[in-house]
Amino acid sequence: MKLTEIDTMIKLLSKLPGLGPRSARRVALHLIKKKETLMIPLSKAISQTANNIKTCECGNLDMEIPCMICMDIKRNKSTICVIEEVSDLWALERSGFFNGIYQVLGGTLDALSGIGPDDLNIATLFERIKKDNIKEVILATSATLAGQTTAHYIYNKLKNENVNVTRLARGLPVGGELDYLDDGTIQQAIKERIVVNDV
Amino acid sequence: MKLTEIDTMIKLLSKLPGLGPRSARRVALHLIKKKETLMIPLSKAISQTANNIKTCECGNLDMEIPCMICMDIKRNKSTICVIEEVSDLWALERSGFFNGIYQVLGGTLDALSGIGPDDLNIATLFERIKKDNIKEVILATSATLAGQTTAHYIYNKLKNENVNVTRLARGLPVGGELDYLDDGTIQQAIKERIVVNDV
Repeated sequence: MKLTEIDTMIKLLSKLPGLGPRSARRVALHLIKKKETLMIPLSKAISQTANNIKTCECGNLDMEIPCMICMDIKRNKSTICVIEEVSDLWALERSGFFNGIYQVLGGTLDALSGIGPDDLNIATLFERIKKDNIKEVILATSATLAGQTTAHYIYNKLKNENVNVTRLARGLPVGGELDYLDDGTIQQAIKERIVVNDV
Repeated sequence: MKLTEIDTMIKLLSKLPGLGPRSARRVALHLIKKKETLMIPLSKAISQTANNIKTCECGNLDMEIPCMICMDIKRNKSTICVIEEVSDLWALERSGFFNGIYQVLGGTLDALSGIGPDDLNIATLFERIKKDNIKEVILATSATLAGQTTAHYIYNKLKNENVNVTRLARGLPVGGELDYLDDGTIQQAIKERIVVNDV
């Protein structure tokens, strides 16, 4: 049987993360019901993004390069935050607390999958540190084995350079109850406890 | 802040059923990673479907009207199956067992939301029954209160016409374990029990 446009659309939708054949059909019918307000705008937004998206030197995705963050004169260009993926950049930007710039690695070192330093944007990081007079590198990879291996690799390369290397604090998540936390987090929280003072 | 194309895309994606802001961002990054194989084809498939989709007299969605089912000379045009939504039509077609034609109502009667017979494709059903020499009407609305109210309304309108009105069997789903079934289904299965014979 020849695939009609709608079958093709459902097949492609079912390849999106979190969607399967059933939810793709549901999405397809929802789109068709909201043709003017959702379906046509969405198709335009996807094709415009596909045509204009660019990857900045820092690894961020934007419509123009250098990206909005690298171009922002209000940001502190001497502090660089090293993260795994663009989604981590978005998460940090949502928190609204970090005012430096980023380096998106595009993944983590993974010997089993054969991902080495050359497969990540690590060389660019070292270049930028030298070239751009970076004073602090915040290693903000995930607190997973792969994330920490990657952080450790970068730290080793930087420890003899004239740059401060820091990492994110580890401990109780805000709103977290001790009773529900895993042992590793509790251990870290005890190990990195800090003195309470009046400030 | 001005919304870039990518923000617009994420905002629209988050309006799809089953997706929220977080999964929409995940979908967006996935699309950008698979720009050639998924993002561009999907945008084309959505816009082509939006441009060409039509609603057949029977309520089915297709690229041409009459739809593929109404046009199929192999199908039994004297049996009409009444269903709520196009998704129900797709479910019946996947089972591959029904060989008649369909009437998609586009919903159910719902006094609370003010949905009356005029808001559904019920008038078309009665017209088709008269005009097309229909011999059997299968009421295949959902086994919910709204679905059964709708089926009952249609049955009342048809009981004095020269047409057989049937409904789907109710009982144990295939593969269902008695222990896990709700009381209503078990009651129906007992009430509609049938004689075991050698055939």
